[in-house]
Amino acid sequence: MNCEVVAVGTELLLGQIVDTNSSWIGEQLALVGIDSHHQTKVGDNLDRMVSVLDQALGRSDAVIVCGGLGPTQDDITREAIAAVMGVELARDEEIIAKIETMFGGRGRNMPENNKRQADVPVGARVNPAMPGTAAGLICPLSGAREGKVIYAVPGVPWEMKEMVLEGVLPDLRERAGITAVIRSRVLRTWGQSESGLAEQLDEEIRRLDETGAATIAFLASGLEGLKVRITAKAHSEAEALAVLDDEEARVRRLIGDIVFGTDDDTIESVVLDLLRARQMTLALAESFTGGLISNRIVGNPGCSDVFRGGVVPYHRDLKQSLLGAGEIGDMSVVSEQMVIEMAEGACRVLDADAGLALSGVAGPEPHEGIDAGVVCIGVHIRGRTGGGASEGSAGNGFSEATTINLPFDRERIRQFSCIMALNMLRTRLLDLD
Amino acid sequence: MNCEVVAVGTELLLGQIVDTNSSWIGEQLALVGIDSHHQTKVGDNLDRMVSVLDQALGRSDAVIVCGGLGPTQDDITREAIAAVMGVELARDEEIIAKIETMFGGRGRNMPENNKRQADVPVGARVNPAMPGTAAGLICPLSGAREGKVIYAVPGVPWEMKEMVLEGVLPDLRERAGITAVIRSRVLRTWGQSESGLAEQLDEEIRRLDETGAATIAFLASGLEGLKVRITAKAHSEAEALAVLDDEEARVRRLIGDIVFGTDDDTIESVVLDLLRARQMTLALAESFTGGLISNRIVGNPGCSDVFRGGVVPYHRDLKQSLLGAGEIGDMSVVSEQMVIEMAEGACRVLDADAGLALSGVAGPEPHEGIDAGVVCIGVHIRGRTGGGASEGSAGNGFSEATTINLPFDRERIRQFSCIMALNMLRTRLLDLD
Repeated sequence: MNCEVVAVGTELLLGQIVDTNSSWIGEQLALVGIDSHHQTKVGDNLDRMVSVLDQALGRSDAVIVCGGLGPTQDDITREAIAAVMGVELARDEEIIAKIETMFGGRGRNMPENNKRQADVPVGARVNPAMPGTAAGLICPLSGAREGKVIYAVPGVPWEMKEMVLEGVLPDLRERAGITAVIRSRVLRTWGQSESGLAEQLDEEIRRLDETGAATIAFLASGLEGLKVRITAKAHSEAEALAVLDDEEARVRRLIGDIVFGTDDDTIESVVLDLLRARQMTLALAESFTGGLISNRIVGNPGCSDVFRGGVVPYHRDLKQSLLGAGEIGDMSVVSEQMVIEMAEGACRVLDADAGLALSGVAGPEPHEGIDAGVVCIGVHIRGRTGGGASEGSAGNGFSEATTINLPFDRERIRQFSCIMALNMLRTRLLDLD
Repeated sequence: MNCEVVAVGTELLLGQIVDTNSSWIGEQLALVGIDSHHQTKVGDNLDRMVSVLDQALGRSDAVIVCGGLGPTQDDITREAIAAVMGVELARDEEIIAKIETMFGGRGRNMPENNKRQADVPVGARVNPAMPGTAAGLICPLSGAREGKVIYAVPGVPWEMKEMVLEGVLPDLRERAGITAVIRSRVLRTWGQSESGLAEQLDEEIRRLDETGAATIAFLASGLEGLKVRITAKAHSEAEALAVLDDEEARVRRLIGDIVFGTDDDTIESVVLDLLRARQMTLALAESFTGGLISNRIVGNPGCSDVFRGGVVPYHRDLKQSLLGAGEIGDMSVVSEQMVIEMAEGACRVLDADAGLALSGVAGPEPHEGIDAGVVCIGVHIRGRTGGGASEGSAGNGFSEATTINLPFDRERIRQFSCIMALNMLRTRLLDLD
């Protein structure tokens, strides 16, 4: 069983929009074990769409067409599929009623144009998911192409995704005779190379090859680290999840605390959770990263119970006037002493339990004799009074700093430093336990 | 003349990498006036690559193949093209020498594998640009497909771009008999809808339709506004640039100061330039935007002559303790009075000439009875002593605030507010003149 993807839209060919839909669909197909050998982009042109669909059906069992289901005159995917099937379009009153309800909910009347979205090729079914005004189509072929199928989904990503997950993949799996339940879990890691991870997990991967219980794959996610994806195939949801739980525990034992989270976790959401669990608050002092960490933190709704705020003392004199850092005159602006004083100052001035501070040279030019790429990161955890304070956080708390040298360009130096700083805070919080 | 694009790589089909190369090439083709009706992704499989190339040559005059020119065994674009041409591969000693020089420059020996990158189908030429170890190919077809051509470029974006611009497009233009010089300029605008812009430029666009001197196109760039792209076709570079200058002046007269910059300008680079020209410094006070503006500012190398720093007083008490804002107890945390006091406080505490402050509710929940999407932006320009101070900035300077209500989600509320705030500061700086 194989399935190809056809993305429709002249704007895709002109490069006005990058086709991320096909990539996402390709990933989903791979995950359920269906091959996809071709993906094609074609403009809003009936003849060319029909020809591309015919071609695709000539070499594949199924085709997912993405886009061209809107209400305007250049949305002609319905017409193209009807032509390929050799049938007419029939207007579906049930769909019209649904669309009218959606417009009504927003206090507006449905424009006449939208009725086109209710046109369905005779013999086709409507996708059970319909999150927007576009109806997805499941179109079985007949005659010499009996057994083959075209799926039409809209180009709007969130509508497309819901329809693929709820309507297209289950139908494809049924056609392919796939009865197994496939579930996967991603372990997010940071701080280890792909070859290093592969080495650490080598024996486990070979064990899985033999038992077939699960598979492990590595996915790069740029500066954000590597994802270890565990995929389990089983007879039931419960069984698949049990396999995932078992395998996750095995992998964690092997690679340790470079695993910072699972699935949708981010390094900053994990740090927020760790702080929240310890009823601690956070303050930031960022220099060359200019608020990048603040921004990542504030991107999480509900962060205000943990995040007090931050300062961006870009100029040296502000490090002193805002945070009391670097009062000794000849202290280097990029030094471990400086970031420790900044982190302590952030805790004091912003009244927080944990302080994270960065100072560095983003480049491209050196600064005060320090090369681009040199970065200092400081962490301060305030001492806690009363019970509950562990050894490491007793008395005046503890401070720690590190210096790194990054061989990247300005933007990557800034991004990488933020992730590294958040990870450093994460491991220090774990050490508190 | 039309040209299609074939992107090669199994990782593209699996969704591990998004194919941005084809989009970029599509845009370049459109810009020089060459149609591209199909773009295809295919895996690293010889039979399927040959079949996709044959298909493409059946319906198009030229094909650009992107990817598969590396040194490893799954890089088989050279073999696929030779098969389509019906010729052998011959090893090109000149290319081997070039690759050896590149390795030597890095103090390393060339691995034996890299010799594969010097294999050229008999009858093909090498692309004049060769920024990496991959050689680009220009492969004319013969026999029934005489006059058609395949271009091979690597999948590494910067290598691909150089080869397309320097080797592929000039050859394509020559084949298409395009002798005109085509140049374009982008005017970046913010604050007007596409239909509004189209209305303001309607008469001018019709005038251009008649004279043919240039064309105008609108390109959306999300929250960052609309781009107005002026394209001129002329006999020489100088003539094309003169047409662009003239047309830019006409468009600016019609749409006024919603044009914030040209080509690679960003709203923050323009604000930095305006401040620099006026020898003014900047301080920021960001609350729910959590350092997003700081981050955009610090993204510009050399910003330190203008940017003093910022504060992110996420909690209310920090607005008061850090900036002296909101000392009157019942002042709403999201109010014009609050952001004016924050902007003034930022100028005072961070010692800057201009202060920009934001407070708002990013949602999804309301905060202190204020709905998500309500945002206040405040600007303060410090009064200047001595000559050169214009009316608006005399004495204690001026402060101004505005309130907006954005119907977006959390992330878009934060992003949009930043752009709007930077644009507000931009227009106030222009008013100083």
